[in-house]
Amino acid sequence: MSFVHGIAAGVAFFLTLAPLISRADDLPSWNDGATKQAIVDFVARVSSEGGDHFVDPAERVAVFDNDGTLWGEQPMYVQLAFVLDRIKSLAPQHPDWKDAEPFKSVLAGDISGLASSGERGLMQLVGATHAGMTSDEFAKIASDWITTAKHPKTGKLYTSMVYQPMLELISYLKANGFEVFIVSGGGIEFMRPWVEQVYGIPPQNVVGSSIKSKYEVNDGKPEIVRLPEIDFVDDGSGKPIGVYTHIGRRPIAAFGNSDGDFQMLEWATSSGGSSFAMIVHHDDADREFAYDRESNFGRLDKGLTEGPKHGWTIVSMKTDWKQIYPE
Amino acid sequence: MSFVHGIAAGVAFFLTLAPLISRADDLPSWNDGATKQAIVDFVARVSSEGGDHFVDPAERVAVFDNDGTLWGEQPMYVQLAFVLDRIKSLAPQHPDWKDAEPFKSVLAGDISGLASSGERGLMQLVGATHAGMTSDEFAKIASDWITTAKHPKTGKLYTSMVYQPMLELISYLKANGFEVFIVSGGGIEFMRPWVEQVYGIPPQNVVGSSIKSKYEVNDGKPEIVRLPEIDFVDDGSGKPIGVYTHIGRRPIAAFGNSDGDFQMLEWATSSGGSSFAMIVHHDDADREFAYDRESNFGRLDKGLTEGPKHGWTIVSMKTDWKQIYPE
Repeated sequence: MSFVHGIAAGVAFFLTLAPLISRADDLPSWNDGATKQAIVDFVARVSSEGGDHFVDPAERVAVFDNDGTLWGEQPMYVQLAFVLDRIKSLAPQHPDWKDAEPFKSVLAGDISGLASSGERGLMQLVGATHAGMTSDEFAKIASDWITTAKHPKTGKLYTSMVYQPMLELISYLKANGFEVFIVSGGGIEFMRPWVEQVYGIPPQNVVGSSIKSKYEVNDGKPEIVRLPEIDFVDDGSGKPIGVYTHIGRRPIAAFGNSDGDFQMLEWATSSGGSSFAMIVHHDDADREFAYDRESNFGRLDKGLTEGPKHGWTIVSMKTDWKQIYPE
Repeated sequence: MSFVHGIAAGVAFFLTLAPLISRADDLPSWNDGATKQAIVDFVARVSSEGGDHFVDPAERVAVFDNDGTLWGEQPMYVQLAFVLDRIKSLAPQHPDWKDAEPFKSVLAGDISGLASSGERGLMQLVGATHAGMTSDEFAKIASDWITTAKHPKTGKLYTSMVYQPMLELISYLKANGFEVFIVSGGGIEFMRPWVEQVYGIPPQNVVGSSIKSKYEVNDGKPEIVRLPEIDFVDDGSGKPIGVYTHIGRRPIAAFGNSDGDFQMLEWATSSGGSSFAMIVHHDDADREFAYDRESNFGRLDKGLTEGPKHGWTIVSMKTDWKQIYPE
């Protein structure tokens, strides 16, 4: 073999090997085993040109729940922590709150009192913290909070408590031609200011719950003003509707962790074509939290029983994940 | 100069020239003049790295109205032609329609009778043609219709009556790092099945008016069923709201043709940063249609008066466009 042929063969060898190396390295925080293999097999199947299960890149839509799927949701949803913090910051401007529920319970740190104020109480809190300001003002409030707020147990920033294996999964899907969306029960405008930096997912690829808003011109300045009225609840049966409204394409891959994601996974896997669904099971009390059928936040009951019958992959955080958080 | 240096210089010359050549060729159906120059200048300004007006590609969001901006809207909105055709196809299954308004007027071709049935009549027509089927069924109905339906005056497919200069503009923006969205008063699900093929814009980048829908599982089959109830009207003040809800970013470029686009252009150009707004003025009775302040469809009155005061570019189809439709 001549020198030139030697180099050419070496380059060819390297080029052939590169995708294999890259594939093995794409999910380094996932332990080898059936779960990781199921992901890799699915992606290989839909992206093998000429194969029976090839899916055009335009149709490779993947949807991820946020709370409990991409980041933690214990001891309470992060957005609820935001609401409680916000009520405390605003309290000095609202002296009446110390005698009026649900504000009184929030200010007293009385979560059971808060719970007893029910949906009406929650709506009052949402109204007081999420509405009554412009879109730009709310984006700044959410941004400022998320940059500094810390988890009560670990003392770490919430944004550093995202799941490293899921970050790798998002990148892996994108590298294989998928367009990735977040489809969360959380507030769409609460997430949009920081998702690009934290997950590499742009704000326009976020679907979530929302309140109504109106456009108006004040003193010559156009503004979008947020109103204290629910527009859409992106949870349970609402998730496939949110997907339909915002994306207009049926996903071929869906990732969740609670029964609020059930219908989204069901919708993604019922077209008859190639599809993949995965449920993250929080079974790691040492490194994160262990909860499922009885939890107040992120209850997983139906999905744990029915998911496997649908062929959905159940991820054990304990067994399948080498590492929980980014280093 | 050696042979090698000569080639190197030639290559360097070609590489330097290439962007200029490419820029001049990107909008071949636009006549040279102030309008074309304004577009090219804006794009150069926001995409010049290190320049004072540079905009990060992630923030380069451009929004286009559809009816009258990307394709024709005379003698009536294409979607209204769809509604009327659809009523005629469904009539044999609804013998009562021949005696009941607004169906009676539609079947008799009596547009003034139809107009007198007002908003309530229109909602009945929308209910009869856009609701009561699954999402997949409606996508097929819209697809099948758009593939065969022809314009009453030209006898051409509606999809061949899109505006060539606007197709070039969409491609030009995309080539310069913009993400392009349609923000239309028309029905979101009426457009989504064909926009990718016709405009190169994927369905997830369409914002529009919508009806409500619900998710249900029938005989084990998950379905999204379309309901006869308005969810959102993406017109006038609704357009910035549609942009906020679906995109979550303020566009830096907005393209419209009627007063229904006014607020969207106003919103896009009021951030204080670099921005661009353009109104297509239908002033070419020979090659297309001439209408503005008095038109029933696509009325342009306020925008024609106020637009120039806002620094918005008014496109004369007659003067600025070398060609109207693709060849």
